[in-house]
Amino acid sequence: MKKFINKIEDIVTEVIDGLVLANPEILSHVPNTKVITRKNINKNKVAVISGGGSGHEPSHGGFVGIGMLDAAVFGEVFTSPGPDRIYDGIQAVVGKPGGLLLVKNYTGDTMNFAMAEQMAKDDGYNIETVIINDDIALVNSDSTTGKRGIIGTLFVQKIAGAAAESGLDLQEVKRIAQKAVDNTASFGISLSGSTVPANGKPGFIVPDGEMEVGLGNHGEPGLRREKQKSADESAEMIMKNIDQYLNLKKGDEVALIVNGLGGTPMMELNILARKAIKILQAKEVKIFKSFVGVYITAIDMAGFSFSVIRLDDELKKFLKAKVITSSLVGIE
Amino acid sequence: MKKFINKIEDIVTEVIDGLVLANPEILSHVPNTKVITRKNINKNKVAVISGGGSGHEPSHGGFVGIGMLDAAVFGEVFTSPGPDRIYDGIQAVVGKPGGLLLVKNYTGDTMNFAMAEQMAKDDGYNIETVIINDDIALVNSDSTTGKRGIIGTLFVQKIAGAAAESGLDLQEVKRIAQKAVDNTASFGISLSGSTVPANGKPGFIVPDGEMEVGLGNHGEPGLRREKQKSADESAEMIMKNIDQYLNLKKGDEVALIVNGLGGTPMMELNILARKAIKILQAKEVKIFKSFVGVYITAIDMAGFSFSVIRLDDELKKFLKAKVITSSLVGIE
Repeated sequence: MKKFINKIEDIVTEVIDGLVLANPEILSHVPNTKVITRKNINKNKVAVISGGGSGHEPSHGGFVGIGMLDAAVFGEVFTSPGPDRIYDGIQAVVGKPGGLLLVKNYTGDTMNFAMAEQMAKDDGYNIETVIINDDIALVNSDSTTGKRGIIGTLFVQKIAGAAAESGLDLQEVKRIAQKAVDNTASFGISLSGSTVPANGKPGFIVPDGEMEVGLGNHGEPGLRREKQKSADESAEMIMKNIDQYLNLKKGDEVALIVNGLGGTPMMELNILARKAIKILQAKEVKIFKSFVGVYITAIDMAGFSFSVIRLDDELKKFLKAKVITSSLVGIE
Repeated sequence: MKKFINKIEDIVTEVIDGLVLANPEILSHVPNTKVITRKNINKNKVAVISGGGSGHEPSHGGFVGIGMLDAAVFGEVFTSPGPDRIYDGIQAVVGKPGGLLLVKNYTGDTMNFAMAEQMAKDDGYNIETVIINDDIALVNSDSTTGKRGIIGTLFVQKIAGAAAESGLDLQEVKRIAQKAVDNTASFGISLSGSTVPANGKPGFIVPDGEMEVGLGNHGEPGLRREKQKSADESAEMIMKNIDQYLNLKKGDEVALIVNGLGGTPMMELNILARKAIKILQAKEVKIFKSFVGVYITAIDMAGFSFSVIRLDDELKKFLKAKVITSSLVGIE
């Protein structure tokens, strides 16, 4: 297996250790848990907590810090963290103003976060949850779980984190996070499956010359398999889907993420970003900010996703607010 | 070929376009050239210029901006830019205080930058050059070019850029850049070759269970091929080489880069960073700052490199100074 790891059972612990050791000014590890918090916990504001399976680095630990997440809860690779782990995260950072759980829409995550929410409420915590379901690939499928949560999660975490940092109350932070979800659409393509270390081989094989359209972040089946397209054709297909879903109009203002899934390098992401931006510009849609990089991966999958959020003044204010995390830094 | 590209001959142009379109507040493209400059060119300070073959994204275009590079010159994939292209970059940003060329030590780069320097001097520009040769893998080999320039380049660009931004004169910026070079050591390992788009297949094949030690950034042969080691064993081997070269002592202060080469995801980089930091801590070497991420790639190569710089107060000051580029942002 072409990976630099040690024991498979130590991966998550070592990822947590590495992240905190490399960013001691930003992050802390809560001892005996799979939870990372910001260095200086502030229980006098609403806490924003996210989490999920590992293998998506830098998400979510890379987005813990000032102006974004207060805590990230780590599951095993591609495995939702159990309710106890999530409750560890709640206990670490939630004070009187309460906490908002940002949960990607997968069966395991929604179930485990709901159980943790109930445990916390039973103990007197004030908790709300927003489900992130930005993946529009399966919008017309018969999947019973509904749309999955993928790279648009970054927008929701950034905006909700900034809203909480600004001192808004829990209901307001929840309302703004939900508004971010409602205005976000994402769509991805892959050219390969990812190799989960415990399996030692790719979860699925995409034959040369083909691509998996509408992929999930974990190697779940996509919408369909197609003949491999060029970068421009791929970007056009995705942006057409996103445009139809969001019904973008001339004069709208958006932010864009061009996200690599682990095995697709920046060279290609820049080429894809070029076309995505040109398509938006041709529609006279204003681009407030573009993020091009590796934010939510699927281990070493060759592939990418676009995510677009339609912005109003409120969302813009929180999207551009100051943030200091290990994988996203911005200056107001 | 599992890549999202369009025409092979358009790759570099499209990478440039994508980078500038995604970062209009930071970058400008000089029309009819392969040069990116910072948005607001300031010819009243020393200009810092770097460049080289493409395929190493985000380097160098991702490091153009306030407090780092004034211009980046793009060669074709894994091909040094010719002297004309480099001179375009000099003309775009160098004013009366002169310009410093930061050149990675490869035969093509050193020759082409030297020719561009001469062209500029003939036209009255004040130009100096610092050669970056941080790759200690081949330090005892019989290579006639000497040590190559690899990921330590990031330290030199950051420090020289900050020194120039602070208003120091050309000789001072050169002295500080050279001091950064002299105190930097880097070493890398790969598990696969990279696929240059024009070739369509990997430049070399590393058999399963083996690794290439002391790799170059382009798929040049490494120092030797070995049985694949665990993450911790790999980190130990590299840090031992770096430690011997820099002769690190208790109480020394350093910065560390753990760099992914394109195909190795953040999950593994965090695991590697953990061990590198623990090794330095065990020696009671103080870590001023760790950078863990994808900074200088070799397209889609699976592999990583460590780079360590020994710091004094002057180098620390410029390493932590404010920087705003598309791939490195820091707040003083």
